[in-house]
Parts: sequence; C-alpha cells; structure tokens
Amino acid sequence: MFPKNTWYVGATPNEIDGKPLGRKICGESIVFFRGPDNTVAAVEDFCPHRGAPLSLGKVDNGKLVCGYHGLEMGCDGKTVAMPCQRVGGFPAVRTYPVVERYGFIWVWPGDAKEADPAKIHHLAWADDPAWSYCGGLYHVKCDYRLMIDNLMDLTHETYLHPTSIGQKEIDETPPKTRLDGNCAITERYMEGIMPPPFWQAGLRGNHLADDVPVDRWQICRFYPPSHVLIDVGVAHAGHGGFHADPKIKASSTVIDFITPETESSTWYFWGMARNFNAQDQALSEQIRSSLSKVFSEDLQMLEMQQQNLERNEGRKLLSLNIDGGGVQARRIIDQMLAAEKAAA
Amino acid sequence: MFPKNTWYVGATPNEIDGKPLGRKICGESIVFFRGPDNTVAAVEDFCPHRGAPLSLGKVDNGKLVCGYHGLEMGCDGKTVAMPCQRVGGFPAVRTYPVVERYGFIWVWPGDAKEADPAKIHHLAWADDPAWSYCGGLYHVKCDYRLMIDNLMDLTHETYLHPTSIGQKEIDETPPKTRLDGNCAITERYMEGIMPPPFWQAGLRGNHLADDVPVDRWQICRFYPPSHVLIDVGVAHAGHGGFHADPKIKASSTVIDFITPETESSTWYFWGMARNFNAQDQALSEQIRSSLSKVFSEDLQMLEMQQQNLERNEGRKLLSLNIDGGGVQARRIIDQMLAAEKAAA
Amino acid sequence: MFPKNTWYVGATPNEIDGKPLGRKICGESIVFFRGPDNTVAAVEDFCPHRGAPLSLGKVDNGKLVCGYHGLEMGCDGKTVAMPCQRVGGFPAVRTYPVVERYGFIWVWPGDAKEADPAKIHHLAWADDPAWSYCGGLYHVKCDYRLMIDNLMDLTHETYLHPTSIGQKEIDETPPKTRLDGNCAITERYMEGIMPPPFWQAGLRGNHLADDVPVDRWQICRFYPPSHVLIDVGVAHAGHGGFHADPKIKASSTVIDFITPETESSTWYFWGMARNFNAQDQALSEQIRSSLSKVFSEDLQMLEMQQQNLERNEGRKLLSLNIDGGGVQARRIIDQMLAAEKAAA
Repeated sequence: MFPKNTWYVGATPNEIDGKPLGRKICGESIVFFRGPDNTVAAVEDFCPHRGAPLSLGKVDNGKLVCGYHGLEMGCDGKTVAMPCQRVGGFPAVRTYPVVERYGFIWVWPGDAKEADPAKIHHLAWADDPAWSYCGGLYHVKCDYRLMIDNLMDLTHETYLHPTSIGQKEIDETPPKTRLDGNCAITERYMEGIMPPPFWQAGLRGNHLADDVPVDRWQICRFYPPSHVLIDVGVAHAGHGGFHADPKIKASSTVIDFITPETESSTWYFWGMARNFNAQDQALSEQIRSSLSKVFSEDLQMLEMQQQNLERNEGRKLLSLNIDGGGVQARRIIDQMLAAEKAAA
Repeated sequence: MFPKNTWYVGATPNEIDGKPLGRKICGESIVFFRGPDNTVAAVEDFCPHRGAPLSLGKVDNGKLVCGYHGLEMGCDGKTVAMPCQRVGGFPAVRTYPVVERYGFIWVWPGDAKEADPAKIHHLAWADDPAWSYCGGLYHVKCDYRLMIDNLMDLTHETYLHPTSIGQKEIDETPPKTRLDGNCAITERYMEGIMPPPFWQAGLRGNHLADDVPVDRWQICRFYPPSHVLIDVGVAHAGHGGFHADPKIKASSTVIDFITPETESSTWYFWGMARNFNAQDQALSEQIRSSLSKVFSEDLQMLEMQQQNLERNEGRKLLSLNIDGGGVQARRIIDQMLAAEKAAA
Repeated sequence: MFPKNTWYVGATPNEIDGKPLGRKICGESIVFFRGPDNTVAAVEDFCPHRGAPLSLGKVDNGKLVCGYHGLEMGCDGKTVAMPCQRVGGFPAVRTYPVVERYGFIWVWPGDAKEADPAKIHHLAWADDPAWSYCGGLYHVKCDYRLMIDNLMDLTHETYLHPTSIGQKEIDETPPKTRLDGNCAITERYMEGIMPPPFWQAGLRGNHLADDVPVDRWQICRFYPPSHVLIDVGVAHAGHGGFHADPKIKASSTVIDFITPETESSTWYFWGMARNFNAQDQALSEQIRSSLSKVFSEDLQMLEMQQQNLERNEGRKLLSLNIDGGGVQARRIIDQMLAAEKAAA
C-alpha cells in the first residue's frame, strides 16, 4: 500500500550516465534515460516490438535503442524509427512524468495528469554552495514503511549502530513528536554528553576538538510520501547546541528518500548534506564511507522484521512514545491513500 | 504449450558417458543411460522402491543401479534385481522412446505408441566425413518459442552480437519468408559487404583472404517441433555467394535444437556444422569457443523478455516482416498442438 | 505432519554460548537463550514492540535484549524493561517448555501444559564418563520422515557410503524388525567379514588389529517422535560380536535426533557416542570429521527424493523387508498424530 500520485526519487544522475537504467518503482517497470536535449525521460521498460526490456539497450543521440532488434524509442513513449520499418502505427508505451532536480531524478508513478513539478519536495541546501551532499543507494526487502519507522525512531542507533552514532544517552532522552501541517517531526536534544565516534570525526572535519562534552540534536522530519530528513549534529557544549555558531559545531542533514519497489521491497536513497567544510571532497568521501557502513547495519534487521510481520499478519504491535514519529507518518500516508482511493 | 508427440534432442552422447543423466524434458523427469548392448535407454527418474532419483545412481553392465538401496532398473522400466528381494511384483516405471542418431540422443516425451524413428529429422551432414560438427548446451529460463523467434529473426545479430557476427547491413536487408510444407524459411542475402570478425576468422579457417568484400547469406529453416537450422556463410564477392565454389567461401550450418524443459525454461543445444577444413580440430575448437560466447549473449535478453511477457500476459506484440519466420514457426507449432489435442 | 506435543532436540549448548539462537522448529519461530541463572529459555522470536526478531539481539545478564530498540525480554515471555518505558502492559510473547539435559537442549513446540520433562528420552551414556560423544548438525530440505527411513534401513550404506561404512555384506544380510512397546527395532548381524575403512579406523582407535575378520552389528532403534539410536560396531570375529568383551571390539551408538523445521525441511542432529578410549579427544575429532563426511553424502539424495515425492504425490511406494523399520516408525508417528488430533 503506497501512494502512486506523488513524486518519488527514482534514480540519481550517475545511474543514467550514458546508458539507460531499468528500475521497478511502485510496481511499475520503468526505464530512465536522457533524451535529445539531455533531459531525463522515463518510459515503460517494454519494447512494443517483442516485449524485450528496453533497459538492456543503449542510448544513441537521445533515443533509446532496443538492444534486441534496434527499435528506437523516444521520450514520449512513441517509436521514433526502426531499421526498414514504418513505425507510424506502432503502439506507444506508457511514459512517466520525470524531473531532474536537486541532484535527484524524481518520478511520478501514478496518474500523469496530476503530476505537478511544483509538488516536488523543496531542498534548499541542494543549490547552495555552502552545502555539500554525498550518499548512496540500498535495496531492502521490506515494506517502505518499516524504513520510515526506522528513521523516525532513532533510539535504534544505540543498538544497531553502537560503534558509530549510538550512545546510551539517546535511549535516556525521550523524544518529542509533533505535527506541522503534513510534516511529522520528532526531536531529541542531549546536552553535555561525549560525542560518539562518528561525531568525533565530524568535529575533526570542522577542525574542532573531539574530546570535549557536546550538545547533540536529532530533528527528524517526515514529509509525504516517504522522505525523512533529519537535522543532526553536535556543538561544543554550552554554545547553543543546534543554534550554535557554525564555527563551533558539526551539523548536517541526513537525507532519506524511501521509494517503494513492490509491497515488500524498497529502494533506499540515503545520504548526508552538510554545511561545514563543504568543498572538502576527502571529507565527503569519508562521510559517505562511514554512512554506507552505518546504514548497511539496518538491512538484516529490517528484512527479518518484514518476514516476522508477514508470518504474523494482523498481530498488534506497540506504539510507544518513541514510535510517535512513525505513527504520525503512517497517519499521513493513510490519508494520502484514502484520498487517492476516493479520487479513483 | 509444447507438442509432446514428437522427437526432441534430449542429450548428447558425452553426457551419458559411463554414467546416467537426469533431465526434465517437457515436464517429464527422465533418466538417460546406456543399456546392456550400449543402446541408450530413457526411463522415468523415479525408483519404484522409495522414489529416489535413479539418476543419482550408477550404470553397471547396462543396468541402472539406484544409488540409494541398490535396486537395478532395466531399459524397459522393469526392475531387474535387488539384493535379497524378489522383484517380480515391483511396479514398472515409465519408459520413453529414445534413439541415438546423428550424434544426438532423441527422445519422445509423449505417447510411445506414436513414436516412429523415421520421423526423426534427417541430418545429411551428420554422417558425411566432409562435414564436422561442434556445439554445446545452454539452459535458458524462457519459453522455447522465444528462442525460436530469436533464431528466425537474425536482425538481432546487429544489436546483441555486434563484435562477432553483427553488422549494420543485416538490418538494412529485409528478409524473405516462405513456407515449404511444414518448414518455415526466412532468408537474407547481402552482397559486396565487408565480413564481420566471426566470418573473417571463418575465411582464414578456409585459407582465404579476410579483408576483401564478400557476399553473405543467412537461410533460416524451422522444422517442427523446434529445430532451427541456418545456412550461413560468406564467399568472396561476385563468385556466386551461397552457390559459390567451396574453395572460395566459408559456409556452414548453425544447428539449434530447442527442447522445452518446462513451460518457461528450455534446453538449448547449439552448434555449427561446416564443410570446410572438416578435419581441423583446432578450428573446431576455435569455432565452438566463439559460438559459446555469441550464444551466451542472448541469454539475459531472452530471460528478461520472458519475465516482461509474464508480467504483461495477453498484451499484443508486433509482427513485422522480420518476425515472419517466427510467426510461421508458431503457426506450425499451433497446428501440432491442435492435432495433438484433437487426437487426445 | 509432525507431532507437536513432544520433546525434540532444538539446539546444542554451544549454539547459545553467550548469544541467542533463532531457529524454526515445527513451524514455530523460537529464540533460545540462557536466563539469569544460566538456565536455558525458549520464547517466541518476535519482539512485542515492533516485531523484530529477538534473536538478532544479545543476552545481557540473563535478559534477551532486542537488537532494535532495546526491549529486555525475560525467560517467561514477559518484557522485563525498556529504556524510558513502563512495560507493565506490554503483551507477553509465547514461551516454549525447554530443558537442557544430556548435552542437548530439548524443546516442546506444542501445548505447554502437556510438557513433562520426565518424557524426555533417557540417554544413559550421556552422564557416564566411560562414554564420549561428538556430533554436528545439518539442515536438510526434506520431510523428517525421509531421514527416519534412511536411518532405519542401513542397506543404503552400501550405495551412499561405499568408501567408509558400506560393504556388500550389508546388502546380503536381511535385517529383522520388531516392536518393543513404542520402540521399533531393526537389526542386522554379519559374521566373519572384513571391516570397512571406518571400522578399521575404529579398531585402531581401540588399539586392535584392523586387518582381521570381524563380526559386525547394526541395531537401529526408533523412539518417538523421531530419535534413531543405532548400536553399531565390530568385534574381532568369534568373540561374541555385540556381546564381546569391550577390549576386543570397537562399539558405539550412532545418535540421530531429527527435528522438523517445516513440513519439508529438517534439522538433523547427528553424532556418535562411544565407550572405548572415551578420553581421547583426538579420536573424537577424527570420528566427528569422518561422520561429518558420511552424513553429508545423504543430503543430496534425501533432498532430491523429497522433490520427486512432491512431484508424485499419492504415488504408492514399496514396503520391503528392509523398509520394516521405517514402516513401524511411521506407524508409531501416525498413532501420535491421531492421539494429538483426538485430544485437540
């Protein structure tokens, strides 16, 4: 159960660098590629000739050439040409609204008439040179909502990520959850604690002492349909925490775009945007490498949780205060699903 | 949907050299082995004692000895002996008509009463010392008819095999398709073109210049149930092409025996018979190695096409002129299926 | 179809050494761990908070700490604590009767009210310092009853284990099967034969000549629900065989605890208890290594037999004299199943 009339991150630009990319999103088999003016296109991954996956072909001057018999597909889902064939009567394949923005490729898997690029979530940092982004992609065999739960309840850091970002004080500090329109926010502030290894490295990355008490914050924001953006960071203790001068803190935003593949599998685009030492590419690479390890620690847990829930369908789970963020997020998703159903 | 009252290639002799071979063909679990006089036998791969697969056993003096408790199975599906047991009342297992001919083991998975060895497709080259054969076997997770389509439309060579047999001129030369009884033929002739790498090697294999224009031909013949035999080759240009003197050409027949395993998987026996330099075993090995690479390039495409079609059941595909060979082949198969259904 | 109101071996102590173990038994997802006083506990592998598998957590002072958000589960299936939470109202998870005895962890997957530790099969040798045990565990994708059949008809040794324990004389000596209460016994005695390689090593292990004729015995005992204990050994010929003086024989008991995982998969706890040279750990390791190889030879046969039987559901198999042990065992199992059904 996922909304389809909405923008999801479908790919990153490097994935379609000179070649098509086949990817299933919300149950739709889609091929992404760059058209004539380098604009990204997304069409059904199905050649109208014999049903071959177009994603096994190549991109030639902005046309997607089927790798089986050479049919040339255009960005509009209509066949442009095929050797020795008149293609006027060829049936078109479905196209999907797609927009490249903020360094991501956004796709709308539902009703194209509803697709308004203005609805794409705004990412202020993406175009700001004071910020820098690095990230990656994982495929996870779980319902996308389990990943949202995961990110809206960071007490799990203490247990799943004990050697990097976890620390006992997370557990000991109850979060507060609130709604701001259709954004669910859950936040936690810890004062005068020692930074865990990941944040020690973060402080060093901003040329700050890493062995002194800090104030640490986690501000998780869920935006529909399944984006979780988390302000995280540490500041030397007593300088205002989240609001401290940038020179005395290491602060950043964890970026999580969670795209359903099927009812029980997910494309997880993870990353971090930071506004300290933004030009330092070695630091970016170090952060990317650390996060890659941290987020990989979640996968087995999420996939086995998925299996456990499938075996125990309908069984009631607990909703504690720490689950408030996930509960609110699911409520917003349920509203979207109901609205989509009512409109259909 | 595959005909069962027909001869398929089930195995090659080397596969039952001193040992049994278990293989599923048209949904039937069969074990092949050599009986007392070295004649090949094919029986159900099921020990009547406890259901063990007989193919895990061994062949001892022409009897198939079950590897679990030593039951000795005969070529007629009747138990010959078992240590300390009277076997007279043991139930027989099914046998399958099987014939070794032309270097292949042919099996009839349907009604044994209908099995007439005279119906085995005749291979004139197989017993001719002027010819030489080399080949291999691939398992492909697709409907056997997708493999037939593949081989009856060689425009795909341009796209799937660009570094060996593909060249733009294939695309630019429309094929002609015709019926000759229950044989579907699709052919293409290209004149005065440069030979692609595979045929450059072929010319060298017949001690001919490889850097001069050639005439090239592709004559694909489909014979029921699923044999595709393709006359292919090149001759130095202007000497008659397909009909040129053998000394001025490199010509051969691509051999494709396509045997259904299940509704969605196939045993693909591929190879090449040639009548130049037939005794040159190094040349045979070189050709086998090249073909092995060429045919492996088809597998991913066919398997993903199969998945695409399963996801889009009932969706109409195109039938262009290049698809004529496959269309005619399927028509012949449909007639066989209808006749089989009517007879049952 | 397996009895659930009975004791199965669920694990061995080394598997829960300092960590929990998740294992499915008779369709139940169970996590085993050691509680506060080091007593083994078995609870449902499902965290009542969000359904995570508790087996991915850790054991801390006898509590099972969920690896996701830190819920602490007690041996009684009740949540002991969770950071910053009142856990009084948390729903309990199911517990399973579990007993550590004889070097094994026994679990009762059915109705806990029926679980009486006195019903655990008695293993006299387990607490006797004159005996020594070594063994291992295999996962086998077959119905547990196929494994029972395997062990109650040792004629298969001739075929599946020809280089270790198999020899022609097994085949040539019919076994005798009888019932002793709810124990099925099938036995075979061979006199004046040469010992096969495994027993040559056994004789050397007891400092006896290995190149002289021996009397060999196999006494297979099936006890419900699925234990097969087999007295095996060889004595120098003419000294009384099974009853010979321990100094002139190498004798031991093969231990087989066969625990259903699902209807078509099995945990196979195999091993050997011996009462010669019991303190010789190098000998134990040598035997364990040999047995590991021997029992691995059964796996492919059993798994392919399972597939064959699934494809031929309802097809009648033979019940020969050599199958008598398996037939009697299945009769006893059927009685247990009927009784369980009647009680429910």
